Amino acid sequence: MSGLIYQKEHRVKYYECDATKQISIPMLLNIMLYVSGEQSYKLGVGDAILLEKGLSWIILQNDIHIQRLPEAGETITITTQALSYNKLFTYREFKAFDETGELCVQVHCTFALMDFAARKMARIAEDVVAPYQVEASKKLIRTPKPEKVDLEKAATIDYRVRYLDIDANQHVNNSKYLDWFLDSLGLDFIKTHRIKSLNVKYEKEVAYGNMVQSKVSLSTQEDGSIISAHQIVNHDVLSCEASMVWEPLNE
Amino acid sequence: MSGLIYQKEHRVKYYECDATKQISIPMLLNIMLYVSGEQSYKLGVGDAILLEKGLSWIILQNDIHIQRLPEAGETITITTQALSYNKLFTYREFKAFDETGELCVQVHCTFALMDFAARKMARIAEDVVAPYQVEASKKLIRTPKPEKVDLEKAATIDYRVRYLDIDANQHVNNSKYLDWFLDSLGLDFIKTHRIKSLNVKYEKEVAYGNMVQSKVSLSTQEDGSIISAHQIVNHDVLSCEASMVWEPLNE
Repeated sequence: MSGLIYQKEHRVKYYECDATKQISIPMLLNIMLYVSGEQSYKLGVGDAILLEKGLSWIILQNDIHIQRLPEAGETITITTQALSYNKLFTYREFKAFDETGELCVQVHCTFALMDFAARKMARIAEDVVAPYQVEASKKLIRTPKPEKVDLEKAATIDYRVRYLDIDANQHVNNSKYLDWFLDSLGLDFIKTHRIKSLNVKYEKEVAYGNMVQSKVSLSTQEDGSIISAHQIVNHDVLSCEASMVWEPLNE
Repeated sequence: MSGLIYQKEHRVKYYECDATKQISIPMLLNIMLYVSGEQSYKLGVGDAILLEKGLSWIILQNDIHIQRLPEAGETITITTQALSYNKLFTYREFKAFDETGELCVQVHCTFALMDFAARKMARIAEDVVAPYQVEASKKLIRTPKPEKVDLEKAATIDYRVRYLDIDANQHVNNSKYLDWFLDSLGLDFIKTHRIKSLNVKYEKEVAYGNMVQSKVSLSTQEDGSIISAHQIVNHDVLSCEASMVWEPLNE
């Protein structure tokens, strides 16, 4: 059985939007994570409590489906709910609804618990997840993997990690990989296409001062949609991969 | 006489903070502008109303004084108040207070009204500013100018304008210049110094795809504080200049 649902209203601000006048996906993910952080805090298992145990949640994968991206001035309702957990992973769903109750964005997120003294994944203890009232399940949820970059056709853009790419954990914030992926597609592409889904898998942290390569390849499907496949490579180590499905606009 | 005061509480989020675990200054300015936008909207002179007249507020200068930067989890109160106006400029003050009522950050901001059909500054009409209940004054408020970069000693870093640097107006968002300025100082400098003030003057818009140069020079004052002087140059045109005063930490 899935766990308690927590929800919060959020007014979309101008500064949360990008050149398309819609909320940027990295910002929407930041806001969603804030909402689940608030649920955890209210259930007595917030980040500060985990920190005392030497633990911290890390995100392994986000699978995002987009009906439409809300615009500045809209008030959206974000809901979040733990779906299940097993000894290594927890699965959580986020939804964003507009004022008419229409579902705009749905996100499935896979988390693991990091023991940061040991620098490895920790077994998920009952007391950490019990407050969410979610059931344990031995079943691993198989989130589809991102489509692979076609390295023979891929374009490569270099990104130097900047000061504001780093968050309080002293690593590149997860949302910044998406900044790089979107930038590597370019403004013209983004303005002439509508994003339908985005699947992103985080592999390895990136530190300040690193120079990373963003690789991107495009392929057109039979139904006319375009898949962009992405990876971030940091000194030959894969840091993050993603794929997005795009629909041409004005056809 | 200064105008109506408008205020709003804001809870500082993790994703609004930088590697110092404090709210990033560009994000704080975004939030402050959102609060003044909300005041304008509630007074019936919001951005949409101005847009119908072909007008839009632009920021010419920000003069920022920092006691301390709030951290994630703090609830701050942001106040804003129009101070005065004349035929070309309006002057507005923002303050951020913490939960104990201590002043954390104070910002003086100079605005002009842009007529975007004519692409030039418009005369400030009485009906646009009357709702703020602020008095006209023929006196120009002389905001001190940023300290000049010492071009002989300056370091230069190139920045390619990225997709998420662009906002709905299709130009680089004002807050992004500050991202570049801070990045050009580097993480080590920012972690070992405390920012006391920041004065930034916006000169010329920057567009997507531009490659800009960020120039920075440092000088030490008699009292031990350090002034960093900055400019953004876009194909030999000055886009923005700023200076910041820093105090070494742990002395």
